Amino acid sequence: MEGLRRAERPDPQPEWHQVLIRIRAVSLNYRDHMVVIGQYMGGAVSRDTIPLSDGAGEVVAVGPGVTRFKVGDRVTGTFFQVWVEGPRTKFAPALGVPLDGTLAEYIALNEDGVVAIPPGLSFEEAATLPCAGVTAWSALMVLGRAVKPGDTVLCLGTGGVSVLALQFAKAAGAKVIITSSSDSKLDRARKLGAEFGINYNTHPDWDKEVQRLTNGRGVDHVVEVGGVATLARSYQSIGFGGKIALIGFLAGMKGQQEPYALMMKGGSLHGVGVGSTAMFEEMNRAIEVNGIKPVVDRVFAFDETPEALRQFAAGNFFGKIVIAV
Amino acid sequence: MEGLRRAERPDPQPEWHQVLIRIRAVSLNYRDHMVVIGQYMGGAVSRDTIPLSDGAGEVVAVGPGVTRFKVGDRVTGTFFQVWVEGPRTKFAPALGVPLDGTLAEYIALNEDGVVAIPPGLSFEEAATLPCAGVTAWSALMVLGRAVKPGDTVLCLGTGGVSVLALQFAKAAGAKVIITSSSDSKLDRARKLGAEFGINYNTHPDWDKEVQRLTNGRGVDHVVEVGGVATLARSYQSIGFGGKIALIGFLAGMKGQQEPYALMMKGGSLHGVGVGSTAMFEEMNRAIEVNGIKPVVDRVFAFDETPEALRQFAAGNFFGKIVIAV
Amino acid sequence: MEGLRRAERPDPQPEWHQVLIRIRAVSLNYRDHMVVIGQYMGGAVSRDTIPLSDGAGEVVAVGPGVTRFKVGDRVTGTFFQVWVEGPRTKFAPALGVPLDGTLAEYIALNEDGVVAIPPGLSFEEAATLPCAGVTAWSALMVLGRAVKPGDTVLCLGTGGVSVLALQFAKAAGAKVIITSSSDSKLDRARKLGAEFGINYNTHPDWDKEVQRLTNGRGVDHVVEVGGVATLARSYQSIGFGGKIALIGFLAGMKGQQEPYALMMKGGSLHGVGVGSTAMFEEMNRAIEVNGIKPVVDRVFAFDETPEALRQFAAGNFFGKIVIAV
Amino acid sequence: MEGLRRAERPDPQPEWHQVLIRIRAVSLNYRDHMVVIGQYMGGAVSRDTIPLSDGAGEVVAVGPGVTRFKVGDRVTGTFFQVWVEGPRTKFAPALGVPLDGTLAEYIALNEDGVVAIPPGLSFEEAATLPCAGVTAWSALMVLGRAVKPGDTVLCLGTGGVSVLALQFAKAAGAKVIITSSSDSKLDRARKLGAEFGINYNTHPDWDKEVQRLTNGRGVDHVVEVGGVATLARSYQSIGFGGKIALIGFLAGMKGQQEPYALMMKGGSLHGVGVGSTAMFEEMNRAIEVNGIKPVVDRVFAFDETPEALRQFAAGNFFGKIVIAV
Repeated sequence: MEGLRRAERPDPQPEWHQVLIRIRAVSLNYRDHMVVIGQYMGGAVSRDTIPLSDGAGEVVAVGPGVTRFKVGDRVTGTFFQVWVEGPRTKFAPALGVPLDGTLAEYIALNEDGVVAIPPGLSFEEAATLPCAGVTAWSALMVLGRAVKPGDTVLCLGTGGVSVLALQFAKAAGAKVIITSSSDSKLDRARKLGAEFGINYNTHPDWDKEVQRLTNGRGVDHVVEVGGVATLARSYQSIGFGGKIALIGFLAGMKGQQEPYALMMKGGSLHGVGVGSTAMFEEMNRAIEVNGIKPVVDRVFAFDETPEALRQFAAGNFFGKIVIAV
Repeated sequence: MEGLRRAERPDPQPEWHQVLIRIRAVSLNYRDHMVVIGQYMGGAVSRDTIPLSDGAGEVVAVGPGVTRFKVGDRVTGTFFQVWVEGPRTKFAPALGVPLDGTLAEYIALNEDGVVAIPPGLSFEEAATLPCAGVTAWSALMVLGRAVKPGDTVLCLGTGGVSVLALQFAKAAGAKVIITSSSDSKLDRARKLGAEFGINYNTHPDWDKEVQRLTNGRGVDHVVEVGGVATLARSYQSIGFGGKIALIGFLAGMKGQQEPYALMMKGGSLHGVGVGSTAMFEEMNRAIEVNGIKPVVDRVFAFDETPEALRQFAAGNFFGKIVIAV
Repeated sequence: MEGLRRAERPDPQPEWHQVLIRIRAVSLNYRDHMVVIGQYMGGAVSRDTIPLSDGAGEVVAVGPGVTRFKVGDRVTGTFFQVWVEGPRTKFAPALGVPLDGTLAEYIALNEDGVVAIPPGLSFEEAATLPCAGVTAWSALMVLGRAVKPGDTVLCLGTGGVSVLALQFAKAAGAKVIITSSSDSKLDRARKLGAEFGINYNTHPDWDKEVQRLTNGRGVDHVVEVGGVATLARSYQSIGFGGKIALIGFLAGMKGQQEPYALMMKGGSLHGVGVGSTAMFEEMNRAIEVNGIKPVVDRVFAFDETPEALRQFAAGNFFGKIVIAV
Repeated sequence: MEGLRRAERPDPQPEWHQVLIRIRAVSLNYRDHMVVIGQYMGGAVSRDTIPLSDGAGEVVAVGPGVTRFKVGDRVTGTFFQVWVEGPRTKFAPALGVPLDGTLAEYIALNEDGVVAIPPGLSFEEAATLPCAGVTAWSALMVLGRAVKPGDTVLCLGTGGVSVLALQFAKAAGAKVIITSSSDSKLDRARKLGAEFGINYNTHPDWDKEVQRLTNGRGVDHVVEVGGVATLARSYQSIGFGGKIALIGFLAGMKGQQEPYALMMKGGSLHGVGVGSTAMFEEMNRAIEVNGIKPVVDRVFAFDETPEALRQFAAGNFFGKIVIAV
């Protein structure tokens, strides 16, 4: 990982309305991987930027005017610094790019860009939430129709967003269908409550399998992390009024597509861009009430960061990869 | 129960788009009680009306044009005959009043006013759903904001609507607070998943207890079956954006009230009037996916109908009272 | 137009819940054009089908059981026979394909698939509404966020759907930007209230012009009739939370596209498939209250039907082409 | 007005993220009246508080960190300091009580609690908006179902909220029914576009008149400023799915009421508590696009403030009373 280098910098000090956090754990997202290999935004990211958006730790100092937190509180930062609440109405910069991120011992953040860790979660578990968790929550519960008991949710793959979406969907009383190229990952998903797993190697036309498993009704929600490369099959997978939450482009940025199936079914496609501090807190209440434990596939030590990124790039994980700081 | 008499009538025949149902179980609702004691609509109900809105059974014949059901299907009738889907836009007559109801061996209903029983439910369990179930579902999931994981729901009492609301709220990932005058009923509610029970005899100011249990946040939803007599405390129980679903007036029709707490909190009060066939089917999917078993307190034989009504009137039940036909 | 032939058939008779309508005017839609030239559904449409979905006339007879209409009522048929209300939950057949359509002297329709003509509209004006009007209404007021005063709406082109959408958007208090290849059509649109017209020949990168006209805010709603060929620019035209209503594919069925702009903006794409009887009635109230007059470009006589279709195919119209029957 | 006294205080200085505004006009609201006569919150308001929530003026200085405004900008303050966006989730203090208000030459406000005046409005017109305007907007367009073209809106009385609601409802394409005890005020309302006026002295059972004027359909929205004293008739005035926005208690705080009509109609009651900065800006866009001019009944000089309050208390106005500072 030549894109990474270790650097010493002066510890940040909390300014007005800022809290200083001692980072204890961080987690990896696809965007971090792209940044480190120099492919994010066409490689335009400064090589001096501290990477990673997701981190959890404890408050070790508070700046003037802070009212929401005190020293000793266990917290995570939010992805955007700061989108407080309501629908997104302006660009806010994100941790990791363009702002310095969480792969550091200390970070100073505005208190409105910080949330308390739900009781019962470790720092490692909490570190999985800022990007993947809030994205999954927003996709299922905020944008377009919300998941309700009895709905069917289709999760593509078993990465961080998809596995958290599976957990949130189960908490909301839905039935879950999940896809993977690995039968053992499908088994893990079933243990988390997924009713059905589809191996997309065995079933390259997995949309037909989705229709079969739903008796031709189609699903109500798709957590679409693949982008246009999978979107055509997602359009075929939904039922009347089905919603596709467009989250990523893991399977490639470009491709033909014919979105007309949306017209026959009154379906919709919603772009998801993580979420607000208020959504994060709402999600944390759901995690607490339902006793949800985010799935940490493996915890690497800080010195193993390059190896952690390699495992991430290879897709050798289920849920989230975490680094203890 | 002098309001009741047994009568022989010719068996109904299914007309165009009707199915003929052999009733196997019926359940009691407050409205049925009011009808039988002659107090519904000021006593204006014809004494020849067959009472009860809720019944489950099997299809024994289908009329011309029927496409949704076939002989042998296990079904329940819907409360309104017929409100198919969408928001309520016109008056539709209900079973039991003014239409002949379900306390009979056979009933012929339009196929759009009939739904399939979810797999796994007995006739007795299914008979609890048409009025109380659809009302609870509509209150929590259709009108105003829908319950989502992490929300807090307050259920007043342990009658049919409240206990089904408790079960739906748990399926939706919410925390539940329930009230009763009986500690043993509160225990039963806790076994169904309620996090907190409040005995309103011990705590006549139960709204303060609700605020205490929610750390001053208030609840997100109230299932209000008491009417104006309890509404003042429901207004005090909600938090910001809280929703009160107004379902009944078990505690009395009249009273002073000051709804201004709604203004401080951006809260809302929604009148619930059972629901549509589409809502019923949606609820049934939730029941199936979440393995919900409606609580049947006791099953009476057809001949014991007067006794069943007496027990109902006395409030000696938790969930629903059912009569096998 | 070799796809058309004149035929004599027995006059239909109104059956149960049907009304018999003497058709007085019909209007043309893109789908009708595709049917007549044998390209709809890959040419699979029976050549014996009476074409056209949209027609207006008067009730000349009512079948048994009819309660909503009486002889002499001025009515239009609905596109689907029958989608009564609520969101779309099942396929209902449409007039023109696969059902016999409105290019006839008489048609018998279920009363739930018929709506009253708003006071003040001629048969010719009313005939423009079933497909194009309900589609525009659904796109703006039903699916996703509804247009509200102060919003900005982008209408692509000046065909039937776009011009009705312009009129509905103005009635709803919105600002309208409309595109065309013809400056004279843009002038007509401005006379109907459009604030801005963009000639997409002069501005092939019309999305940039949209951003300029909105001071970089982007629009809140796009009435997307072009399909994937224009969708890439529609994605660029919206602002935060912007909604694109996907209605047609006039500019071609296939193409590359990258929907990721939706992610940055929290935008959404909604498939529109005309709408229900209830939406039609809702739209008619809006037409009545706001004195909206649908734009009839030209009325052809029944014998001129082939010429009407040729003018339609050539795009020589603004709003709608109507045929008097 | 012994409750008022003139005082000299040091001019405020803009601190971090504050702008200093030279107030040019203020408007009166019912709450201000209650404060001045010492009856607000049981008289608990400090007599040193500068009253009034609503003011407009120009920015004369900006504090450190300010990005949204510059010297010379024409602005109004928001009612709450500060509720930025999204639904209300916490208490924010309001201008006038408990914070010092706008009846002053200068006020320093956080930039997030300030909005630009729409082009074309005078300071006097802009001063009508912070409380009454945002309240009317929230009541019609934010809480519960939003007004859409063809809806019918009932406005009670001709005070600031009701007249602005009338204007917003017309901009949204709705039909408006308005009530008053004065035929000349009803005439003024008709000139602003109200279709129907009801004199509630002539028609004390004005709900019946509402039903008559709507052919028994009832209205879709009620702007309820009277409180429980009028609420019983508001419940009778709505149609299916009708929404009552509870805004005030001008007609008295207490009274019997039976909200059960909500159950028959699937109606709802929503508490309105002004609104956020984002809602204010949204409303301002609607004002600009639709050329709305708030109705200023009369402008008093600063020295005439006691007389302005007396006229307000006597109800001798239509729309808003303004004081030039």
